[in-house]
Amino acid sequence: MALPPVALDAMGGDRAPHEVVQGALAAAEEGIPVVLLGDGEVLKAAGGGKLPLVAAPEKVGMGESALAGARKKGSPVRVGIEMLARGEASAFVSAGNTGAVVAASYLCLKRWVRRPALAAVLPFPRGGVILLDVGAGADARPEDLLGFARLGLAYAGVLGWEGARVGLLNIGRERGKGDALRKEAHSLLGTSGLPFVGNVEPDWLPERAAEVVVTDGFSGNLVLKTLEGAVSAFAPGRVESWEEVGGALLLGVGGVVVVAHGKSSARAVQRALRRAWEAAVASLPDGVARALDARA
Amino acid sequence: MALPPVALDAMGGDRAPHEVVQGALAAAEEGIPVVLLGDGEVLKAAGGGKLPLVAAPEKVGMGESALAGARKKGSPVRVGIEMLARGEASAFVSAGNTGAVVAASYLCLKRWVRRPALAAVLPFPRGGVILLDVGAGADARPEDLLGFARLGLAYAGVLGWEGARVGLLNIGRERGKGDALRKEAHSLLGTSGLPFVGNVEPDWLPERAAEVVVTDGFSGNLVLKTLEGAVSAFAPGRVESWEEVGGALLLGVGGVVVVAHGKSSARAVQRALRRAWEAAVASLPDGVARALDARA
Repeated sequence: MALPPVALDAMGGDRAPHEVVQGALAAAEEGIPVVLLGDGEVLKAAGGGKLPLVAAPEKVGMGESALAGARKKGSPVRVGIEMLARGEASAFVSAGNTGAVVAASYLCLKRWVRRPALAAVLPFPRGGVILLDVGAGADARPEDLLGFARLGLAYAGVLGWEGARVGLLNIGRERGKGDALRKEAHSLLGTSGLPFVGNVEPDWLPERAAEVVVTDGFSGNLVLKTLEGAVSAFAPGRVESWEEVGGALLLGVGGVVVVAHGKSSARAVQRALRRAWEAAVASLPDGVARALDARA
Repeated sequence: MALPPVALDAMGGDRAPHEVVQGALAAAEEGIPVVLLGDGEVLKAAGGGKLPLVAAPEKVGMGESALAGARKKGSPVRVGIEMLARGEASAFVSAGNTGAVVAASYLCLKRWVRRPALAAVLPFPRGGVILLDVGAGADARPEDLLGFARLGLAYAGVLGWEGARVGLLNIGRERGKGDALRKEAHSLLGTSGLPFVGNVEPDWLPERAAEVVVTDGFSGNLVLKTLEGAVSAFAPGRVESWEEVGGALLLGVGGVVVVAHGKSSARAVQRALRRAWEAAVASLPDGVARALDARA
C-alpha cells in the first residue's frame, strides 16, 4: 500500500512561502509525495500550483504562544498534524513556530513518553551525533533528561547505530560540574543502567565522545544554532552538507513530525522533506516505541 | 614605574605543566614579564627554570569544589590572586579550575558588582563580539543578566567600541521566547535605558547583531565551547586565529584575572598572557569601574 504524502506547512519560516514551495517542488521531483498546506492563492502565486494543496489559511505568527498557535484549527500546523493523526499524511514538516508544532502534536497525536523531544542528527565529519532536546520545550527537569536519553538511544537503534552511548551535555567533564539540573541528571543517568559515559563538553561533540547527547531544550537549541552560525561564518563551503541535517525529529509521539530551522532555504526544506519521508517509510515512530518497550 | 609581572598558574589545565610553561617562555620572549606559580621541582623539570618562580605546591583538582580550591592557601590560584590583591602581580592567568579562580577572586579582590562575569571576545570574521557570562557562575537570575549587560558595555567602552549594543542570547528573536529567565531578563533589559536590541539567536552572533551579548554562565560556556569545537571540526585552518581569544576576562573585580581554556596549548597560554598583560597596561579594571560609575 502506498504511503500518503508528506504534509508541508508552506507558510511557516522566515523565507516562506517562496523558498518553502521551491523546496517542495525539488522534493517532489525526486519522487517524494508532498501536499502543501496554506493559503491557496498565496501558494499558487509562489509557484506551488503544480502540487496538491490543502487549504489552511489561518496564520500562526512566530511570536504567538505555542498553545494559541496549536489551537487555530485552520492553521497549517493544526491541519497538518490532524492529517497525520488521521493517517492522511505520512509525516508533517514545518519551518514555522516550533512551539505551535509541538503543542499541536501534544493535542492530536499519541504520546509515548511524558516529555517528547526534538532530536537533531549533527553531521560531524567523524559521524553523526544525536542531540536532544533541541527545543521542544525550554525548561526541563532531571527526569526529563533521563527520558531524552531513552528516546535518543531508541532512535540510534532505529538508525542501526550499534552500541550507542549517552552523554550529558555539560560545561565540564567531571561529575559535579554544571548547574543544579545537570548535577541531578548526572546522578539519575549514572544509576539508570543506560550506557552512560558521563558529561560531554560541547567541544567534544565532533569527536563523538557519545553518539547520543542529552540536554534541556533551551541549551540544545542554542548549541544547534551556534553550530549553524559557526559553519556559516568559518566554513561557508560546508553549509550545504550542514543543511543535510534537514530539521529535527520530534521523538516520543505517534507520527513523524519534523521541525526545520526558521531560516530554511529551499535546499534545507527539501532535505527536511526527505528526512521526513525516509522516517515515514521506515516507520520510525513504531521503531522508537518498540525500542522503548524493549528497554522498559 | 614598571608594572609587576603577570602571575601564571603553571599547574592548571589539562596540558600543564609542559604546555603552560612553554607558553610562558614564549610570552617572556616577546617581553611580557611572567612569574610561574606551582611546584618548583615540577616546573624546573618542565623547562621553567629560566623564569622567576613562586612556590605554590598545593594542588587544586578540576573536580574539586570552587570554594575548597579557593581556600587552599598554598595553591597557585590562591597565591596568585593574593599577589594580585597586594599589587605584587599586575594580572593573574589560569587554565585550571575556573570555579576556584572565581571564588578566590571573590575572597581576595575588591568587587564592584554583585555578580562578576567572565567575558570572552569572540573573534568572528566580521569583528569581535563580547559574550558574557561564559562560566563564572552556572546559575543566574534576571537581574544578573542586566548586571552583565552593564559590565559588557563598560568593557566595550574600554576597548574603544563606539555605540556598542546589547543583545540577550535566546532561542528565538521574538519577545516572549525562551525559558523563564530569558523572559524576565528581556523585560528588565528593555526598560533599563541601555542600548538593547532584543533577543539574539546564536547563529546571528557572527553577524554582530549586537556587540555585547549576555547570558547565564552555563549556556555561555556551552556556546563558547561549541564554537571552539566547530572551528576545530569544520575549519581546522582557523584554530590558530580562534586561539587569539586568549581566555576570558573576569569583569567586575579589582584586578586583571584571565581564565584560559582547560585544553590550552602553549600558544593559547601565550595569548592569554598577552591579553592579561595588555589589560594590565591599559588599567582595564579601573576603566570598567569608571564606565560603570558613569552609567550609574
